[in-house]
Order: sequence, then C-alpha cells, then structure tokens
Amino acid sequence: MERVKRNVRMAIISQQLTSTPNQIHTLNEFALLFDAAKSTISEDISLLTEAFKQYGAGIIETVPGAAGGVVYRALSNNQSMQETVDQLCAYLNEPDRILPGGFLYTSDISSDPQFATRIGEIFATRFAAQHPDIVLTMETKGIPLALMTAKQLGIPLVIARRDSKAYEGSAVKINYVAGRRDGTQVDTMTLERRAIAAGQRILIIDDFAKNGGTITGMAELANEFEATVIGVGVMVAAKELDLRINCDVCALACMHELDYSRRIVAVEGLHFES
Amino acid sequence: MERVKRNVRMAIISQQLTSTPNQIHTLNEFALLFDAAKSTISEDISLLTEAFKQYGAGIIETVPGAAGGVVYRALSNNQSMQETVDQLCAYLNEPDRILPGGFLYTSDISSDPQFATRIGEIFATRFAAQHPDIVLTMETKGIPLALMTAKQLGIPLVIARRDSKAYEGSAVKINYVAGRRDGTQVDTMTLERRAIAAGQRILIIDDFAKNGGTITGMAELANEFEATVIGVGVMVAAKELDLRINCDVCALACMHELDYSRRIVAVEGLHFES
Repeated sequence: MERVKRNVRMAIISQQLTSTPNQIHTLNEFALLFDAAKSTISEDISLLTEAFKQYGAGIIETVPGAAGGVVYRALSNNQSMQETVDQLCAYLNEPDRILPGGFLYTSDISSDPQFATRIGEIFATRFAAQHPDIVLTMETKGIPLALMTAKQLGIPLVIARRDSKAYEGSAVKINYVAGRRDGTQVDTMTLERRAIAAGQRILIIDDFAKNGGTITGMAELANEFEATVIGVGVMVAAKELDLRINCDVCALACMHELDYSRRIVAVEGLHFES
Repeated sequence: MERVKRNVRMAIISQQLTSTPNQIHTLNEFALLFDAAKSTISEDISLLTEAFKQYGAGIIETVPGAAGGVVYRALSNNQSMQETVDQLCAYLNEPDRILPGGFLYTSDISSDPQFATRIGEIFATRFAAQHPDIVLTMETKGIPLALMTAKQLGIPLVIARRDSKAYEGSAVKINYVAGRRDGTQVDTMTLERRAIAAGQRILIIDDFAKNGGTITGMAELANEFEATVIGVGVMVAAKELDLRINCDVCALACMHELDYSRRIVAVEGLHFES
C-alpha cells in the first residue's frame, strides 16, 4: 500500500475537524484512517494547529486524558466578526425592509443558513469563556441563530414554545409580559421538563429584542428549572432595551430609529477592536 | 517573506472550503492569501479534489466561467448516511421516549446541532440533483433539520407560520386539514408574500409526518405562490403515511408501531446500498 503523503493527511484532518466543531477526535482515529504512526499524526496536528492560528481559521485544542484527543473550535477573529456585523447593518438599513406599524422585515436575514452560521460564530466566540451548557431560544425567528450558536459551541439547543404540545411530555408553563411596557399583554411560554436540568448554564439567543419581554420571560423560565442564565445574545436590539437581567448581554446591532411614514431606518453595529 | 508550504496551503484551503459549502471561491482569492502563483493553487486544488474523493470527505467542484472558481459540496457517501440513520433509529427506539397518547419525544434529536447537520447532509445529498431553489418548513420542530439541509445545499430557508405576524409584511394564508383524516381539524398556515417567487423549486423538509396533513398544507401553500414542489424529506414517517403529492418523497425512518400502554416502539430505518 502506498504511503499517504503529509499534505493529504493534513488536508483530510483539516476537513474532518472543520466539519465537526467541538467534537473530540483521537489521534488513534487518524492513525487508523491513514495507516500511520501516532507520532506522525501528532506532528501533522502540530503543523495544522500552527497553520490555523496563522490564518485565523479557528483554534485546534489538545484535550488531555484518557478520553482526550484534538478538538476544533470555530472561533472568529475581530476582523471577520466586524465584517459580519457591517454586512448585517447594511442589510438592516435597506429602506424596503420597513413595514407598516414600524416593524422591520428580517426573516430572510436570520434564516439565511450562511449568514446564521456567521452570526452563530460571533455569539459562540463571545460567550465561549462562560462555558454555557445549553442554548435557549423561543420559537420561531431566533431558532436558526440559536442553532448555529449551539453548533459552534458544541452544546444542545432547547426551544421554548408558546403552548405545550402532546409530543413533548410534561412541561413547565409560565406567564410573561410580552411586548408592551404597561404589562397589559401577557403571553405564555412553555418548555418540556426534560429539556433542562437544575444547575445548567444557559445562554439565551434571539433575533430581535424591543422591550426585552421575551428574553426576560426566558430568564424566568430558566429560573423555574433552577438553571443559571450566563449570557444573552441578540441580533438586533431597540435602543430603549433595558433587560434588568444580571448577566452578560450582547446585541450585534442597535436600532436607533424606525419610521414607517418617512421610510427611515437607522441601525448601528457593534464595534470590535481591530 | 517565507514561502508557504504546500501542506499548509492545502490544509487552509481545505478548512475554508469545508466551512463554506456551496460557496464559490476563486483561485485568485487563495493566490492572494498565500502570495502564490495561480498555477500553484490550481495544483493544490487538484490534489485536494483527489484526496477528498478518496476519503469520502465530500466533493470539490470546479465552476467554469468569469464568475467561476471552486466550490465544496458536503455530499455524504452511503456508508456515513447509513450510520446516521442507524443512530437515529437507535435513539427513536428508546422506550422512555414514548409519551401518553401515543406520541414519541423527538425534540432533543431534531434540535441537536451535530445530529441535525448529519440529517441535513443526507437530505442535501438525496435532493441535490433536483436543484431546489428554497427549503420550506413549517414551524417549529422541523426548523433545525430544514436549516441544515438548506445550508448544505447553499440555498435559503423559508419558514411557514401558524399565523402571520406584523413583522413579516403582507402574507398568504391558507386553511389546511391537520392531523385527523376525517377533516375535522382545520388549521391555518401563513407565509409572507416576499418569501417565494413564482416558478421556484421547493424542497419541503419536516421532522415528523403522521397523516401528512402539514406537508400537504405546505405543498398547497407552495401552489399559491406558483412554485413547484420537487421533493419532500421527513425524518420519521408513520407507516400509514400516504402523501398523494406527485414528487420525490424520502423518509429516513418509518414508525411501524407505537403503543403507550405496553411501552413498545418499533422504528425501522431506510437502507442505503453498500
């Protein structure tokens, strides 16, 4: 059998790590795949680690111990995060997104798979150090962003629903103040009991926050499960947003103005240090 | 400046192609990145194409023309698709998923980011040849699978809602027969008018189909937009499913039996040729 060349091994290991972020691969797995010595694979991985670092392609980490190996983390650098946020603001500032009643059409942005991936990478990079166990969102529009964040962090996604369904088993249901500040609009939010365990660290992700009613509701829901909210990531927040949740909050863009009659929208993006 | 080695170039190109499936990269882009001649990059890509093929790591295609370049398609081979389906069935056949009323708890499976990715890869592989323009699903549980399918195909995701929302603009709303065969349970389904253009080719993806009411509803909705449904992919279908839609239907698993009182569930997976 012909010996597999280093450039082929490195290319395939690169492919496999990139396509499975946060998943541990053993050196043995690659040694078997290429019929090579573990020391050879170990050298390949050192070179890969260096190359990924140099080109800002994410981080390859070595996990020690019996269940150890190597793991890929798709962390973004500030330059690529800034490009994504600038692109987001360019989209949001298009005047034909303004809808009657002072709403902004954003469904096409948040459910674009490639763009959702990039936003998920930002949230994952931003909150990785807080070691969340679960990403929580409320149906429907935030799901793609929450899923991509969870994927990049290598943790499960949990979706709160408006109503509990027969196919979810026993659930916790809460009432929360949605939308209006005066507390007149009360909605319900439910989550199946088996979705979150006590003590888990929750990262809340959503696409849009105006008064923060839904996010505050999710935090109260997490409380019912005796879980801890460690962070909140939203794609766009209204400038009047004031969450009153004691945790790390990150909004990628802030909406300063939205006027249907004059067709004006002004969204400003987050600035990353360059 | 030190010349970048072939193994580093190949590893980084591999990383970039894998992390952006279906996105065209020009040779020029890589030539600039590594300060190398286009002929050198072209050789790197030939070697990569061969290596990816040999290890079943997906397909690297060359797109000719002025807007051409190389593009990565995350197509799965039969062996890895079979592993995913077998794993799916192992999960679904766990007796503690059976809920009162003869329902099966599957939310944790369909919203697991890594598993949703693998299922999305199967649907993308299965339907790529029909060249869909859009993936369509109905909220809520099918969204992660539909998003990952859309991502692997490099096309947008569109999400139908139960009710139209102010932040979606003008919408088309239909009534459809949900759940029961006798037609007594009629639900509504809406989709914003700007989501689909006439003539587009639609791939419907959902997590579960019992009588096929929701899927038939989505096909009727696509009709209202003068779009064509080219295929339907579901994760689990009940054995009595009979869609009566004239298109390519693919269910990854079939539920033969589900009995709450005796705690019996029998799910059988699709078989791929080996």
